[in-house]
Amino acid sequence: MSVYTPVSEAELAAWLGVYSVGKLVSCEPIKAGIENTNYFVTTTQGRYVLTLFERLPAEELPFYINLMAHLARHGIPCPAPIADLADQYLRVLNGKPAVLVTRLPGRSLERPGAAECAELGALLGRMHLAARSYSAYLENPRGPRWWRFAAREVRPFLKQEEVRLLEGELDFQARHRFPDLPRGPVHADLFRDNALFEKGRISGVIDFYFAGVDCLLYDVAVCANDWCLVDPQADRRLDEARAKALLEACHAARPFSALERDAWPAMLRAAALRFWLSRLYDFHLPRPGMLVHAHDPEHFRDLLELRMQASPIWVD
Amino acid sequence: MSVYTPVSEAELAAWLGVYSVGKLVSCEPIKAGIENTNYFVTTTQGRYVLTLFERLPAEELPFYINLMAHLARHGIPCPAPIADLADQYLRVLNGKPAVLVTRLPGRSLERPGAAECAELGALLGRMHLAARSYSAYLENPRGPRWWRFAAREVRPFLKQEEVRLLEGELDFQARHRFPDLPRGPVHADLFRDNALFEKGRISGVIDFYFAGVDCLLYDVAVCANDWCLVDPQADRRLDEARAKALLEACHAARPFSALERDAWPAMLRAAALRFWLSRLYDFHLPRPGMLVHAHDPEHFRDLLELRMQASPIWVD
Repeated sequence: MSVYTPVSEAELAAWLGVYSVGKLVSCEPIKAGIENTNYFVTTTQGRYVLTLFERLPAEELPFYINLMAHLARHGIPCPAPIADLADQYLRVLNGKPAVLVTRLPGRSLERPGAAECAELGALLGRMHLAARSYSAYLENPRGPRWWRFAAREVRPFLKQEEVRLLEGELDFQARHRFPDLPRGPVHADLFRDNALFEKGRISGVIDFYFAGVDCLLYDVAVCANDWCLVDPQADRRLDEARAKALLEACHAARPFSALERDAWPAMLRAAALRFWLSRLYDFHLPRPGMLVHAHDPEHFRDLLELRMQASPIWVD
Repeated sequence: MSVYTPVSEAELAAWLGVYSVGKLVSCEPIKAGIENTNYFVTTTQGRYVLTLFERLPAEELPFYINLMAHLARHGIPCPAPIADLADQYLRVLNGKPAVLVTRLPGRSLERPGAAECAELGALLGRMHLAARSYSAYLENPRGPRWWRFAAREVRPFLKQEEVRLLEGELDFQARHRFPDLPRGPVHADLFRDNALFEKGRISGVIDFYFAGVDCLLYDVAVCANDWCLVDPQADRRLDEARAKALLEACHAARPFSALERDAWPAMLRAAALRFWLSRLYDFHLPRPGMLVHAHDPEHFRDLLELRMQASPIWVD
């Protein structure tokens, strides 16, 4: 369970006194997530999520929080930060920077079908368009610079063939940069558990704490690598129907360029590499006090190798 | 029906193309309201209200719209304006300034009880606190300056005893100004049809297009004069249980000062005067093309006379 910083009901009730959200009715720790401490908070006014930031650099927090506020006021169903009476989103609670955001309805899906992948694709396209008028800048914190750092750190723990695979892919990616692709703020971690559905429609996109500015297509590749697998356990190739549904709906909302078509195979590999590296890092170099067991890195190594072989699926 | 400016589905679908709210599913004119043209709009993303401004001065619109945005991000359940891809709330549609806002759930109540009046009072208190960090300024457009203008315009149509009542009350109000009362942005028109309830809770406060900066207590008086009548048709005295529920819940959220207690009887009269005047004005000087029949001014004349006689109800 990921509650690094406990908050009592009395502490929370007092803290909420400088908000306009009514009185505390209940709060409940959220078990999912490994980065922050989260609580579901219910007041006489509504339902919220309280997040205490455990390790994100304080200077990066406004980028994430203002991005959510920006997207929410453009109609994107993402958590809307709540400002306090001093008109601030970020406040300290029990020694940690904390934010209160709206709680969205719906639940995440373990096995999305083509219709849900199309919903996701359309949402991605709309979100990328809405985010382009967001003026703050934060380079994707898990981009190429971080890959090189993480690769150095995990190399001592890797087998010979893993080192070869990793070095080869870093080299490939270094030779395949796409400076002319459309860029902007991307979610960069939009796995199935970060999207909520209600009555077949996306009702929420959550957890923007890996967001940053990168190629918009990278966001699509991260999604394809999680939402569109033939079988996440047994066959990590892309399922053609779901991958096409994702891409075509995204293309309908924000038409892809020819450059994006050419970049797609390398982008799928980049998205696989990024999560292979972070899983290797968390597996071999767990943070002290980390409460959740690290995910198995093998999943993304296998996925990366498959993307290196595959002939790409793209919109017709 | 109050659709002064028709909008076709094709026009609306095209107009929505520069928003991030998905594709138009349906739109439906809203019959209530006499000031603006309103449509319910449903898209693949959600439910919205489209408002085309028919006669509000263009330079005042940002005050109302940014106030709603401010309150929404403080957790007040009010319509949240949706920004377009150029990051603007206001855009022209069929020659009129227009805004798209979120549509809130719930329905208004014709006969609120003490529990609902308490909900309203708590919401008023929280809304006034949240609004105090709003920095734009617009004097209440239906304040004392407007009373004097409207009184001049309607005088030729009034009977002798109505002129006496009106002049006497304007004189009383001129001698009872309260420059030291807490002031800030107020809704100023929070009648029963501008509040939505769901499962006994306020789910929405709508129609901020009479908002302005005034005494916070004035907002409470406008509410008391509409929500807390013994019988809106037959007995316009304040019902003690409902008036106390309203005041006590408001006091619990934002404690009243002793000055506010002293000002309460005059404030109830000011709130009655303002609506008597606007109904007289709309009755005797209807705007050309006005599509809705004017309300009967008698209601508020009777109400004003009762407030002049009554011993006030206040929090214990």
